[in-house]
Amino acid sequence: MMLKSALALDTAVHSMVEIFAWIEARRQATRYEVTPIPFSALKGWCFDPQTGNLQHESGRFFSIEGVRVRTDWGFVPEWDQPIICQPEVGFLGILCKRINGVLHFLLQTKIEPGNIGGIQIAPTLQATKSNYTQVHKGARPRYLEYFISPDDSKVHLDVLQSEQGSKYLRKRNRNIILEVDGDIPVEEDFCWMTLGQIGLLLKQDNLINMDTRTVISCISYGSYDRRSLELAKSVLFHDAAQANDQRHMLLSALDAERHLHTFAELISWITNMKCRYELEINRIPLNEVRCWRRDSTHIRHETGKYFSVMAVEATIESREVSSWCQPLVQSAQIGIIAFLIKEIKGVYHFLVQAKLEPGNMDIIELAPTVQCVNDNYRSSIPEQKPAYLDYVLQVKPEQIWYDTHQSEEGGRFYHEQNRSLIIEVEDDFPLDVPPTYAWMTLNQIKMFIHFNNYFNMEARSLVSAIGLW
Amino acid sequence: MMLKSALALDTAVHSMVEIFAWIEARRQATRYEVTPIPFSALKGWCFDPQTGNLQHESGRFFSIEGVRVRTDWGFVPEWDQPIICQPEVGFLGILCKRINGVLHFLLQTKIEPGNIGGIQIAPTLQATKSNYTQVHKGARPRYLEYFISPDDSKVHLDVLQSEQGSKYLRKRNRNIILEVDGDIPVEEDFCWMTLGQIGLLLKQDNLINMDTRTVISCISYGSYDRRSLELAKSVLFHDAAQANDQRHMLLSALDAERHLHTFAELISWITNMKCRYELEINRIPLNEVRCWRRDSTHIRHETGKYFSVMAVEATIESREVSSWCQPLVQSAQIGIIAFLIKEIKGVYHFLVQAKLEPGNMDIIELAPTVQCVNDNYRSSIPEQKPAYLDYVLQVKPEQIWYDTHQSEEGGRFYHEQNRSLIIEVEDDFPLDVPPTYAWMTLNQIKMFIHFNNYFNMEARSLVSAIGLW
Repeated sequence: MMLKSALALDTAVHSMVEIFAWIEARRQATRYEVTPIPFSALKGWCFDPQTGNLQHESGRFFSIEGVRVRTDWGFVPEWDQPIICQPEVGFLGILCKRINGVLHFLLQTKIEPGNIGGIQIAPTLQATKSNYTQVHKGARPRYLEYFISPDDSKVHLDVLQSEQGSKYLRKRNRNIILEVDGDIPVEEDFCWMTLGQIGLLLKQDNLINMDTRTVISCISYGSYDRRSLELAKSVLFHDAAQANDQRHMLLSALDAERHLHTFAELISWITNMKCRYELEINRIPLNEVRCWRRDSTHIRHETGKYFSVMAVEATIESREVSSWCQPLVQSAQIGIIAFLIKEIKGVYHFLVQAKLEPGNMDIIELAPTVQCVNDNYRSSIPEQKPAYLDYVLQVKPEQIWYDTHQSEEGGRFYHEQNRSLIIEVEDDFPLDVPPTYAWMTLNQIKMFIHFNNYFNMEARSLVSAIGLW
Repeated sequence: MMLKSALALDTAVHSMVEIFAWIEARRQATRYEVTPIPFSALKGWCFDPQTGNLQHESGRFFSIEGVRVRTDWGFVPEWDQPIICQPEVGFLGILCKRINGVLHFLLQTKIEPGNIGGIQIAPTLQATKSNYTQVHKGARPRYLEYFISPDDSKVHLDVLQSEQGSKYLRKRNRNIILEVDGDIPVEEDFCWMTLGQIGLLLKQDNLINMDTRTVISCISYGSYDRRSLELAKSVLFHDAAQANDQRHMLLSALDAERHLHTFAELISWITNMKCRYELEINRIPLNEVRCWRRDSTHIRHETGKYFSVMAVEATIESREVSSWCQPLVQSAQIGIIAFLIKEIKGVYHFLVQAKLEPGNMDIIELAPTVQCVNDNYRSSIPEQKPAYLDYVLQVKPEQIWYDTHQSEEGGRFYHEQNRSLIIEVEDDFPLDVPPTYAWMTLNQIKMFIHFNNYFNMEARSLVSAIGLW
């Protein structure tokens, strides 16, 4: 069923033209204003006099605290940094429904204060516990009731997935897709679309928000043996002209038999990485974080690198609350995330990296081939440069399958985006990779995502963008 | 291959008679003495003057510290307790080798100070990092080199698994099985045996140690569709008289198609449990642990319940170090762990419990149907009694598939054992179970174990005892 929806680009419900028109209409209809403000104007929030932690008066939502990190991974053995603490698990939920035999997903237009370009496309429900227990005294999130008591619904997936380990301390969200049967009310800022249509929107810069991307990335299309796949191929590609590269990505998603490494080998590799590297995290008061300075508008690293903490006042229509202040995290530069892919045994494999980040639940998570802030490495000595970064920056245009900018959660990050790339390497690209890297098929990636806490947010974001059509 | 070994009871290498004779010979040949001592005689260990934590002079091995636990799971919202802290990941490794076409596993006889009855059967390698970096200046553990650089070997499995969450703070071990090809030296306290033979030894009380049991529990026998299973059944059970109950357990291990719940449903259930229950763990100095008292020989709860910390002096031959002192944890009573099983859709299902324990890495782990210290509940008010405990204590003898005593790791626990039961329920036993319970096939259990940190030590211990022959 998921596969059928992923291959459906135009349906009886809405054409792509109609979907773009709906987005544009929503953009026109929604007014918003977001203004950076000094911390002194940050209503409802305060720096704790003892710890310097930046927190909400209610003690809910999230706080900015400090961590002291010690690790033998990478080139910096110890550092301090601010980090977002949000112990609550939030809901990222999408309702889906069979319409004319094809699964459609209910997405909404939504503005968050940190968004680039205002409106983005969000899941049906995007709610922290503070949201849905109505700490901010706003309206109850729409469609919440389906997710609180999913009795008449069919659960397609329901997994805990991590957020960015570089800036969140062990934060997780509950990624859910529920199928509903009967009629449900669809308000004007909501729209049904297929997975294939969502895939097309993912080719636009900064349109599908991070929360939608992570939920979509968890969808698996099933596992099949070679015989079944041959059958499907004969049926699908009876016209030889259609037998193009994408067919191979379909194979990578579905083929449970052809891969460079078995699951036992990949799990052993992950086990080895978790045993080899140590990560010691000590929470410290924000005012004891070394090398970071607070002025009237920002908390910044003294070099100006990495990221800063700032504050905004936001006035946004069509939200539970129309006006509020909050802190946001702002990256110093645009990041770059990229998967290198290579056909191995007739099936596309992705070059996955085991990456340690301070907020990880379990030392390392699996990341894209390249995940970094490019400018941080401009002046690096060569051996400290991230592997494959130079390669990614110099590929030929015809190697690039996917190249867009995708933004991070606008409820926490201010105008943060990553250049997101999927790049096919040349035939002579070596199969041998450094010890912290491994080749996996999309089918294997989906299986690891299914079992939680293996793939990081950046990797899942790229995985969501892989089109099967 | 694993399946063939699991079905092999007598092989050309050793008969069961020979294996029992070898164990008896080792028992005779090994001398040991373990004496409880007061803390004042605990050479090499001390109570930190500030925190009261009990630790080794080197700062290595393990320490006994305190935790303050807050949770909304169960009937006690907050408590303090001592806990074993051992941040190192240890190796639990078994070498295996094809002999006459059947995989044999290299196990050793070993005495740990807390063992009941002295000798138990241990993995090829059982080493903490302190062991193998030789902090205690003893000999290098035998066969270590195979596990440090497993180049010429085949990795059958290599996964991180938890230890008891009630007494260890987030402790994990690396469970490994490596296949070797060439000849390797086998010393007199080592012996090759098949999985089937290990299964027979698991029917003895306190013989196969916990470390062997957890590694064995991780072995998976593969997943098959119904057609392949029908074929295997026709071949294996051509003699109708053999077509007994065990055949169904084989189905439960191998059948990837018939089950009450899909993986998506089970993962959703686990996700829901992890979101529903909160676990807040704060490490505190041992001398601030409320309701626990230290005298000259024990650290005990003031009611005498739960467990105590004591000290022993051990003199044991055929170990790296022949004489040493160390603390051990002693349970107040014998525990009881039991899986209820039921045939559903023609395949045996296990009734699994989501259980919160303070040392868990991720709030809940999956546990046997019943896991408790029976005596703690003798006087409980009925609604606080663990579900199914009364049922387990009153079953008819013919319902019991398995009933032995198995002991916990003798390197940390003094004479600790659990009565371990596998019980088949009657036909009219309800499929409906409380929200923290779920039915799974053995095939599903093995898949979760494969992906780490789902099943707790107690459940894995029972899983290791399930015979397929």
